[in-house]
Amino acid sequence: MFFEGSEKKVEVVVNSEVNLLSFERSFWEELVLNSKAQILSSIENSKTKAFLLSESSLFVWEDRFVLITCGQTTLVKAIEFFLSKIPSNNIASLIFQRKNEYFSHLQKSSFLDDVKALSEEIDGTAYRFGKMHEHHNFMYCSNKEYTPSVEDKTIELLMYEISPEASSFLNKTYEDPKIIRDFLQLEKLFPDYIIDDFAFKPQGYSVNAIKDDFYFTIHITPEEFNSYISFETNETNSSDKLQGLMEILKPETFDVVSFNNEEGISIPDHFHKRTKVTSTINLGYDVIFSHFYNKETVNDRPYILNIKESK
Amino acid sequence: MFFEGSEKKVEVVVNSEVNLLSFERSFWEELVLNSKAQILSSIENSKTKAFLLSESSLFVWEDRFVLITCGQTTLVKAIEFFLSKIPSNNIASLIFQRKNEYFSHLQKSSFLDDVKALSEEIDGTAYRFGKMHEHHNFMYCSNKEYTPSVEDKTIELLMYEISPEASSFLNKTYEDPKIIRDFLQLEKLFPDYIIDDFAFKPQGYSVNAIKDDFYFTIHITPEEFNSYISFETNETNSSDKLQGLMEILKPETFDVVSFNNEEGISIPDHFHKRTKVTSTINLGYDVIFSHFYNKETVNDRPYILNIKESK
Repeated sequence: MFFEGSEKKVEVVVNSEVNLLSFERSFWEELVLNSKAQILSSIENSKTKAFLLSESSLFVWEDRFVLITCGQTTLVKAIEFFLSKIPSNNIASLIFQRKNEYFSHLQKSSFLDDVKALSEEIDGTAYRFGKMHEHHNFMYCSNKEYTPSVEDKTIELLMYEISPEASSFLNKTYEDPKIIRDFLQLEKLFPDYIIDDFAFKPQGYSVNAIKDDFYFTIHITPEEFNSYISFETNETNSSDKLQGLMEILKPETFDVVSFNNEEGISIPDHFHKRTKVTSTINLGYDVIFSHFYNKETVNDRPYILNIKESK
Repeated sequence: MFFEGSEKKVEVVVNSEVNLLSFERSFWEELVLNSKAQILSSIENSKTKAFLLSESSLFVWEDRFVLITCGQTTLVKAIEFFLSKIPSNNIASLIFQRKNEYFSHLQKSSFLDDVKALSEEIDGTAYRFGKMHEHHNFMYCSNKEYTPSVEDKTIELLMYEISPEASSFLNKTYEDPKIIRDFLQLEKLFPDYIIDDFAFKPQGYSVNAIKDDFYFTIHITPEEFNSYISFETNETNSSDKLQGLMEILKPETFDVVSFNNEEGISIPDHFHKRTKVTSTINLGYDVIFSHFYNKETVNDRPYILNIKESK
């Protein structure tokens, strides 16, 4: 059975008339259920709540939430639920993202289906960063006037085809998620974070972590033929952390998506930049989508599919 | 309405007990109908019959046929029809190919669905040439022992995102296909070929051409946001012809798939080789899949989707 690791993500910002931290847990449970995911566990501090989900993560602050879901989830249904509860004049901005998928035919909806549904609720602009037949990132952004705060920076690092060693270590069943947390050196790379993680069966790993109003999250789909690991954070100086993860996981290709965070990451020498798509989107963020590949493995062999085990 | 240009293709070789040229036209009509395409016109010489289809092409020789279909066709149904009519011990080899698609969720089946169906009929091996999230070519090849003849060479050139000038010229409705034939300089590049071509409405163009037992075929999906042009031939010295087409169409990226035809094409300087996947497949062909991109346009802007016109 194939599991689609590629995520959908939404970030919704509300104005000062709404305080999302005051919402009951039952509200977020219902929101998440609308996307066909469930809350597994949660952590919080005075500024941030973080929910670990059966398919990825939810983070909530006073003025915004970030919901990330993978697999065959229906994230747009969760957005529709939220928009049905909050008056539209209290919505300051909405960004919906969807990454290139392995098997889009197994998805409940296409990006264009999602955009059709969202555009009924909130006027917006739809972008594709990157080429259709290569790595890319779809984005739907509300058209309301909006000015991000200076500290509002995000970086997403999407790693594909990690090293055989990392894949082999991660592609096992672990009772204790700490084994994976240690493999990733999370407590060393991210000191002072409260960490909440989960090891899935038969394989897979998710972690949420918070410190003040900073967060990071990692989701691992370790299956050898399509390993995929996503990382994202709103920390401003995270370059060494991203590099630390890259050194442990050694992906063959990776994408970086940054919002007002160009300095984000320095690229190891053996990677070649395939594409760099830059734009100041309608919401005032400088968005950069870059895709890199390992230039040492340009010459390759075909992948032989296992017919019997294929879905 | 989006049209999927990416093709599926099958080449079936039969042994000397079967002469495919002796088959009635009605047989090929029924075969093609099984894939949900129709014959529009045909040409023939003493060695080759070529049928232009509503979705691509069919070529027939004494010992083999090549069927290429695009859009939402069900090529595997046509293969199943053929295999139901010809005893399996008369099948010498079968190669089924499927290219990366824009919108796999609009397809009637996935490659794995196709492989499942084909493997019920004929034992084979399934390959993926190229990375899943980038340009790639799926291949299912029968496992019977087979030795291709020395002259059996094929080259496929798949061009994406042709120049705005070429796209704008081709993305029009023409009554007379000769206007496009002349634009492509086909009579100059391929002298002595019998040509059969068709201009689709509102846009699109297909051409079949034969000379002795040589063929070439071109299919054009000119729509600006996803222009795609495929060319293939079994001519052995076709490098200058491929380059001629590349100079006219100026694609941003292209793939070359060759079967026992490595010399195939010399690459213009401004292209960078992203990947070269090489293998001698089980049927004895040296297969090379290469993908190239224009290194002058690595820095790019996002594509803005037209929400209202999107399907």
